[in-house]
Amino acid sequence: MNTNSIAFLGGDKRSLFAADCFLRLGFEVYLSGFEMLESFGGLVLTDMQTALCAADIVVLPVTGIRGSTIPCYFSDKELNIDEDTFKNKLVFMGRGDTLRATCPTARVYDLLGREDFAVANAQPTAEGAVQVAMENFEDTILGSRCLVIGYGRIGRILSQMLFALKADVDVATRSAEKAAYICADGNTPVNIAEVVTLCGYDIVFNTVPAMVIDKKFLRRSDSDTLLIDLASAPGGIDFDEAKSLGFTAIQALSLPGKCSPAAAGRIISDTILTVLGEEYSWKKQA
Amino acid sequence: MNTNSIAFLGGDKRSLFAADCFLRLGFEVYLSGFEMLESFGGLVLTDMQTALCAADIVVLPVTGIRGSTIPCYFSDKELNIDEDTFKNKLVFMGRGDTLRATCPTARVYDLLGREDFAVANAQPTAEGAVQVAMENFEDTILGSRCLVIGYGRIGRILSQMLFALKADVDVATRSAEKAAYICADGNTPVNIAEVVTLCGYDIVFNTVPAMVIDKKFLRRSDSDTLLIDLASAPGGIDFDEAKSLGFTAIQALSLPGKCSPAAAGRIISDTILTVLGEEYSWKKQA
Amino acid sequence: MNTNSIAFLGGDKRSLFAADCFLRLGFEVYLSGFEMLESFGGLVLTDMQTALCAADIVVLPVTGIRGSTIPCYFSDKELNIDEDTFKNKLVFMGRGDTLRATCPTARVYDLLGREDFAVANAQPTAEGAVQVAMENFEDTILGSRCLVIGYGRIGRILSQMLFALKADVDVATRSAEKAAYICADGNTPVNIAEVVTLCGYDIVFNTVPAMVIDKKFLRRSDSDTLLIDLASAPGGIDFDEAKSLGFTAIQALSLPGKCSPAAAGRIISDTILTVLGEEYSWKKQA
Amino acid sequence: MNTNSIAFLGGDKRSLFAADCFLRLGFEVYLSGFEMLESFGGLVLTDMQTALCAADIVVLPVTGIRGSTIPCYFSDKELNIDEDTFKNKLVFMGRGDTLRATCPTARVYDLLGREDFAVANAQPTAEGAVQVAMENFEDTILGSRCLVIGYGRIGRILSQMLFALKADVDVATRSAEKAAYICADGNTPVNIAEVVTLCGYDIVFNTVPAMVIDKKFLRRSDSDTLLIDLASAPGGIDFDEAKSLGFTAIQALSLPGKCSPAAAGRIISDTILTVLGEEYSWKKQA
Repeated sequence: MNTNSIAFLGGDKRSLFAADCFLRLGFEVYLSGFEMLESFGGLVLTDMQTALCAADIVVLPVTGIRGSTIPCYFSDKELNIDEDTFKNKLVFMGRGDTLRATCPTARVYDLLGREDFAVANAQPTAEGAVQVAMENFEDTILGSRCLVIGYGRIGRILSQMLFALKADVDVATRSAEKAAYICADGNTPVNIAEVVTLCGYDIVFNTVPAMVIDKKFLRRSDSDTLLIDLASAPGGIDFDEAKSLGFTAIQALSLPGKCSPAAAGRIISDTILTVLGEEYSWKKQA
Repeated sequence: MNTNSIAFLGGDKRSLFAADCFLRLGFEVYLSGFEMLESFGGLVLTDMQTALCAADIVVLPVTGIRGSTIPCYFSDKELNIDEDTFKNKLVFMGRGDTLRATCPTARVYDLLGREDFAVANAQPTAEGAVQVAMENFEDTILGSRCLVIGYGRIGRILSQMLFALKADVDVATRSAEKAAYICADGNTPVNIAEVVTLCGYDIVFNTVPAMVIDKKFLRRSDSDTLLIDLASAPGGIDFDEAKSLGFTAIQALSLPGKCSPAAAGRIISDTILTVLGEEYSWKKQA
Repeated sequence: MNTNSIAFLGGDKRSLFAADCFLRLGFEVYLSGFEMLESFGGLVLTDMQTALCAADIVVLPVTGIRGSTIPCYFSDKELNIDEDTFKNKLVFMGRGDTLRATCPTARVYDLLGREDFAVANAQPTAEGAVQVAMENFEDTILGSRCLVIGYGRIGRILSQMLFALKADVDVATRSAEKAAYICADGNTPVNIAEVVTLCGYDIVFNTVPAMVIDKKFLRRSDSDTLLIDLASAPGGIDFDEAKSLGFTAIQALSLPGKCSPAAAGRIISDTILTVLGEEYSWKKQA
Repeated sequence: MNTNSIAFLGGDKRSLFAADCFLRLGFEVYLSGFEMLESFGGLVLTDMQTALCAADIVVLPVTGIRGSTIPCYFSDKELNIDEDTFKNKLVFMGRGDTLRATCPTARVYDLLGREDFAVANAQPTAEGAVQVAMENFEDTILGSRCLVIGYGRIGRILSQMLFALKADVDVATRSAEKAAYICADGNTPVNIAEVVTLCGYDIVFNTVPAMVIDKKFLRRSDSDTLLIDLASAPGGIDFDEAKSLGFTAIQALSLPGKCSPAAAGRIISDTILTVLGEEYSWKKQA
């Protein structure tokens, strides 16, 4: 396999930043589906066929494809694929199942399945969550009373970031082990089963993909509390009820792509390079 | 003097939040120039005459008045004053010189002249600056190379906040003493006289009210650097030149009022209470 | 089972602090093997037989017993046990295998096997490691170049603490996932396989229980580097070689007990209470 | 004046580390009064006469001289001086008044009078205070309730360091301006006039050179509180009363020299270089 050429097909700014990382490493980089751009720091635009002739490694959007169409945020046209388009190509993307069905001859590598990719994205997600909080909260983060629900990848980094910004942070977990880490962070662990109301919290960040902040919870709480849901759709907040009760409730999805596309792109390229290193013995030239 | 009643005339959200603080302390609070609001947490709206009959202490906007007019952001009409309007009243406001000229019989107390007021506002200013940076920077603050010009009130708090967010922070100062504090913060002091280019910095925050980032500086730099000016107008960046060279350059003024009106209002009320305590022996009831 | 009485037999200061926690919660607390003490904040001393008659819950040292003897740091005499001493008692301790052999009728609960106990102890261990570093390093932690080997419980908390103290911190791990967390901490992940020398590091903290800093490593390094081994014996440093090469190399074991016995005692009592809650439905009175 | 040679006469480890800094910068370095050492990283020992013949710049201990004697911690003998010993020499030292009296022809530069020197030393002082606290406190700094009295150079850096270590920190000040900075630090300002007892604090650090913790204060407090006095002698704690009441009270003086002589020496050399740059146009060779 030619590991010196790489094609980026469609996607948003993250793909551009990822492509740029490969360019700096000396790869030949082919870019299709970005016709709206005239140029982006030395990257050259081409059509999909040319790109696929030249490159064995292909990168599709982390958000996945739609049926046989690759979403292109910087083009009026979409890129269409068929079952042979990626024959024998190594394809990096997110939500790869659709492509596996459409194009069984492709070797699909799903980035979202990698724990290191998920952890790396948790950091820009947490920064994005702080930005969303700052934009929607009328007081300062310093001194604000925050509840972070969940202490997984995002909850861990977010709650530490809020401590660093001098908020007063509770973190809801059921795990005694995580509670011990939360204490070491300088924050306060709470058992979500014992949190009966959100009153007293200025900002609540949910990171758990389950209906945590349900009707009952909301009705026992005060609509002054700002609610930010970071869990993937359908999320953990009853948004209809929250709206009717007067809460500001924000479904904050895909924050790395929206708030920090450069970081998100670098994480994509770093992860691809790690995979190439692990599975194809690719090595960065010193 | 009756120190149990207070009138807020005109202004923006900060006045509302400040008024709310006094309400919670048991003051009678009169609010004029907010007709657009129906209610704001228990505060009652009235006309200016009624307010001035009832209250000896008056709060005008921190942004000051315009001639004989009080700006009212929550009203279609402005409030007009004459030389007797505030006769013998104790008036708290910002930029009080205009009022001193218009209304010489008023006892004008200029909040902006107090160092504790300025320091307290530096914290929401620094948070606002981080928010502006997050909104305009495509990468994460973590790992970004930042230059903070000046280590006064804002530069000090901002550079420490950027460290807490794990940026790589240089702080420009000419003072050996400040350089020692900057080292203790974990950041790197640089002598602005020796900074010849902004290349290498992702984000530059200027806090010095002097033309620091001038034409020559900009021309030696790369337009990828995000420029954020926190110094009061005219600021310290040559914005025309920056624009023509393709920089993103943001004049970020009045950040506490825009980003954190609740904190800004609390700082106004805290400072008024401090003054009342120092000069009028007012004491909070236990 | 009577869950209102508890006996502490032998041990060091940690046992005293743990006993004190139970006293504050309203337990009847019996203390044996502390004859050197006259009193310790309201705790009453008694002989082992009296204690065992009164209490169904027994706490032995976290460091375990030696054969049929309980080590007593505050007594001239040791406490001797036989196979019936703890018949049907619930015994909390560390390294319980010896007791399980000596006294098969006891219900032995090994605290060291619990992850929450281990995590909770990692925090005082990390603080103790910082203390040991401060005591043995002639410069400040601020600005020092540190290498933390391993990013398990201790490595994670210690490396974050060093960041907070403004050291320049590398963390050695082989895991791409942990490397992503290390970046989010603001520190730098390094692959231990690529660290060929310790030159350039002021302080090296090892947390990995394997011979990492071996002869070869030491010979390629400079003896100015301070070496602190936090891994349980035999540890991860070739101490003989280190000594002969002139390194200061410290085997820092049992730091919670030595540096923070109050915290260590509280962790013991917290963990026992968690177990009583999980397995015996014990509940703290509101 | 020859600014390429420098003589260090007497003193402790700080002088050695300072001398080493000059050696690395390419200075000819002469060292007298260190006979106990065989060698110290390339520095050469000589007698005082030789040193003074060769060097126009002389460094004496920061702790000052005693009458006509220079204290030498690494020698059995002291160095004796008379009124002509430093004729026309530029002498850097601390507490220079004694030398000005003994040797009026010397140009004495008192390092302790420089604010940048004092600020730079505040950082190792604060680290040393944390070390002293760790060594004398049986719980962890994390979660401990600390009171820092004074928010000058040391109080500022120390209280921020304790926040970073996740203590619960009150800072006593009378200044509204400093109170605003303390809030921005994430700590809690208290008015020392309203602190009637130390009960509730685990550790109290005094930085104010006045009798703050007097008899009355101590008698209203609980002897469990650890007292650490960082103010220069006689300090701010009534040590006799504290002792008789059973407090652990520590007079922690000269912490940079004791805990971080390398940092203290570097600060000496940095400050001397700053003075040489400001007053003698000395420049570091690029």
